[in-house]
Formats: sequence, structure tokens, C-alpha cells
Amino acid sequence: MPNFNRLVRFKDTDENIRYGEAPSSGKLIGSEVEVYSGTEPWNLSPTKERAVISEVLAPLNHTPIIYGIGLNYKTHIAEAGWPTPPYPTVFTKPPGALNGPFSTVPVHPQCTLMDYEGELAVIIGKDCKDVGDPADALEFVLGYTAANDVSSRYWQAPEISGQQHGYAKSFDGFAPIGPVLVSTTAAGPVGDMVLVTRVNDQERQRAKLDDLLFGVGDLIVHLSRGTTLKAGTIILTGTPGGVAAFMKPPAWLKTGDTVEVEISGIGSILNEYVYQ
Amino acid sequence: MPNFNRLVRFKDTDENIRYGEAPSSGKLIGSEVEVYSGTEPWNLSPTKERAVISEVLAPLNHTPIIYGIGLNYKTHIAEAGWPTPPYPTVFTKPPGALNGPFSTVPVHPQCTLMDYEGELAVIIGKDCKDVGDPADALEFVLGYTAANDVSSRYWQAPEISGQQHGYAKSFDGFAPIGPVLVSTTAAGPVGDMVLVTRVNDQERQRAKLDDLLFGVGDLIVHLSRGTTLKAGTIILTGTPGGVAAFMKPPAWLKTGDTVEVEISGIGSILNEYVYQ
Repeated sequence: MPNFNRLVRFKDTDENIRYGEAPSSGKLIGSEVEVYSGTEPWNLSPTKERAVISEVLAPLNHTPIIYGIGLNYKTHIAEAGWPTPPYPTVFTKPPGALNGPFSTVPVHPQCTLMDYEGELAVIIGKDCKDVGDPADALEFVLGYTAANDVSSRYWQAPEISGQQHGYAKSFDGFAPIGPVLVSTTAAGPVGDMVLVTRVNDQERQRAKLDDLLFGVGDLIVHLSRGTTLKAGTIILTGTPGGVAAFMKPPAWLKTGDTVEVEISGIGSILNEYVYQ
Repeated sequence: MPNFNRLVRFKDTDENIRYGEAPSSGKLIGSEVEVYSGTEPWNLSPTKERAVISEVLAPLNHTPIIYGIGLNYKTHIAEAGWPTPPYPTVFTKPPGALNGPFSTVPVHPQCTLMDYEGELAVIIGKDCKDVGDPADALEFVLGYTAANDVSSRYWQAPEISGQQHGYAKSFDGFAPIGPVLVSTTAAGPVGDMVLVTRVNDQERQRAKLDDLLFGVGDLIVHLSRGTTLKAGTIILTGTPGGVAAFMKPPAWLKTGDTVEVEISGIGSILNEYVYQ
């Protein structure tokens, strides 16, 4: 569908916000890239212009909604002894949670027990509803990017949240994504991707994406049932084992800690948690 | 804040979509009303024009997000024997759930065990964040309207939903609101309002709004913690006892059933459930 391979949204050296074609490897900052014209990533046209990246932004300027999925790695479900869920467990993060790939994550003073969840994010590129067959879902996918489903486990505790996951993950800036949006064609099979999360350079999560219980197609079938998924919708596909909450003792993030989420073929986001 | 008392969004006799000042009583359809200019209900200006209402629409054209609140009527919590929650239980419905006050509610074939939840809806009229004191919250409220938090109890069952309430309530058209948006000044104290829900003219829910555990100010304090509430955000304040799920046996809605939610001082919405 899209006419890009690796889409980067960036500020150029004159502070203009542009879309461009990212290099397949190497540093983004300082790269000179081909520029696309257009305001939405599903509606871009090539130009003959080139520009130098001075700051990398989230590949989407805005989103109608962010869906999160709980409990979606088979190994993690098995090791925790949880029953296999019959359908994806769905919660949301509001549009204001969207954040840049290298931006700070602002942490409200009442958001304690701070955690990370490294995840593959799927971006919808064309409105869809009632996608009945997972095999038909990819045509509505604009591409993939990396994400951190930032979470305050204080607010997620069942007795505090009424068991609803969303509130704990919905604060402004709690959904950094990036650094680039890789088209489905350029990305190849999701199952071949490897996700690694590091806190202050220490590895905490590592998983191959073939371990997803509900694949990208399954998630789109479920989320589009009787429901229009608008272009720009973000689907976070769940996180593997290794979050701070399940370490003994839990290794809650402190102010100044950095979380890197790297996905092979996509790249890394790196966000510092800054307590307000 | 707003310069209206009772805002109605409607189609006039030439099918133009307009905002106008609704009469304080009597039928809306066929009324000739003063027209407001402007596209957003928080940014309207009076005109000297008048127009006749031929169809009443949802008072908002779009919404950034709809928040729902679970378990918020003290009597209902007590009679069900549930513990009093320390904070509001929060879930969401996406923008596409928004529906008109007299529109049909389309029910997907896989949405079974259909139910209603009559609720007071609060509409945010000015972006706000970190509203620390409930007493400061009303300045951000554009007004009140009636709502039905339409729910498929099949999808809400804990073993199906992973205990997340949102999915079961997020289908297109599952949030009818209206018929008018009443300013906080014109509405008077929320605690004096009475909410009644009827299915096919049979009364099912009746509650005075002074029974809310978390009042409008409390909800805005909680939802705005570290989070920007954008103008147009809808907050559904929870439902009292009397839903179909707790009748013995449960009285699930059939296709063609109508649900009316009436709130004193606001008026009634009436929606037919139509199975697809």
C-alpha cells in the first residue's frame, strides 16, 4: 500500500517537520534523506528534495486511538501458569499518550511503581471494519514500528484500577513509538523479528515475534469486529516476559533511567523516564 | 463558559447541519430555534438566524475519546455487596462509538447478550490537565447530556474479555448521547437530577444523581491526573442498578427493542437496537 520502505518523520536543520525515506542502517541523525510530500503517512508522494535529519519524531503526528493487548506471548503465558485466553485482552491508551522515539517520558508524582513493556506496534493505514479473515488484514497495515507501553503498576493494581489496565498506561507521553515505520513489504514476516528491551543498557526482555499467541491478522480481525479502525490507529501487540514488576524484587524505574526497545529490522527507541 | 443554555445540533429542513438554542420543554422536531454559528460547541456565536429542526443529532460532531466509569452508584454497590472502590474504575469507548440520540444501534451478529446502561454524560469544553481540586473542575465542563453505555455482556464476561470492560462497549454506535447539551449554569446541581431508563416503555432504572460515589469533579480530577483531557472528551459517569444482566432471568435486548434514557432537565434519548 504505502510507497515508502522505511518512513522517518523528522525535523530538518531548519526545524521544519518532514517525512523522508530512512537509510536501512546507520544513524538517523545527520543523515540526508529523500523527502516525501504530504501530511499523513498513508498519503505521501516522493519529491526530488533532500533534507538532513536533526531530530527524529514519532512516525505519526497524531492517532485516533492506541489499542494495547495483554498476555500475548505464549512462552510468557506458560511460564506464569496463566490459562490461554480465548480472545485478545484489549485495553486502550488515549491519543495524548503518543510520544517520540527519543523523547522523555514525563512521570506524574502520583505515578509510582514505574515499568516498561517493549512491544511491536502495528499502524493501520486504511480505514477497515469487519475484517473477517486474518489473511486479509495485512492490506490495511501501513507498517510496523517499535513501542514502549509505559505503565505505572501502582495504578494497574487490581484493587486500585478495578482490574482495568488502561488508566495506568494512559498518561501523557506513555506511548513512545519509532524510530521509523517499516512497510509490511520491507519488514518481511513478523515472526522473524526479535524484540529486545534494555534498561540503562542492561537487557531485560528478549523474544522472537513468532511467539505471539494472537498474530497481527488475528488482532485486526478482533479489533475490527463491528468497529471501524481508522487510519493512524496504533495496535500494541503485547509484551514478553522480563518486565520490572516480575523481577524479585521488582526493579521499578527511577528518574533518569532509560528504556531502549529494539526490534530487528526496525531499530531502537530510547526514552528517559523523568519524574515531575 | 459556553454562551448557550440548551444546545441542540440538528438538521434543518434543507438538511444543513446547525447548532441552535433548544426550547426548555416540548418537542424538538418542528421547533424553530435561534441558530449559532461555529463548528465546535465550545466556540459558538449567536446569530440572528432561525431554523426549524427536522432531525436531532448528537450534540458533538466528534469526540477525542469517551471515558466510561464502572460501579459509581452507592446504592447499587451496597446492594450488590461489592467493596467501595478507592478510585473510579475507568475504561474507554473509541470515537466511532459516538451515536445520535434517536439513531439505531447496529448490533454485530457476534454481539450477543445485549444490554443498556443509562448514564449522565459530562462533556469537556476546554483542554485541562492536573485539575487537582474537584471544586475547580466545573470550569472545564461544557455541559451535561444523557447517554446509553450500550454493552454486549458476552464480550464483557471476565473469561472472554480478560476482565477489561472496554471491548464489549466499543462497537460502532454503542454510545448514543443527547438530545441536548445543557450548560452547567442552566442545568443546576447534578445531585438534583433524576435518571430513568425504559426498555419498550417499561421502567428498568431509576436513580437520583446525588447517589454518585465519585461526583463530576472527582472524575475530572482522576481522569486529568498527568493526562490532558481534550475539549470534546465525553465522560460517562456510571450506571445505577436495573440493567438487563442482573434481572432474573437476564432480559437481554432483542432486535427492535428500544431503550430510552431520560434525565430530568435534559430530556430523553431513544435508540432502537437493530441486529445486523
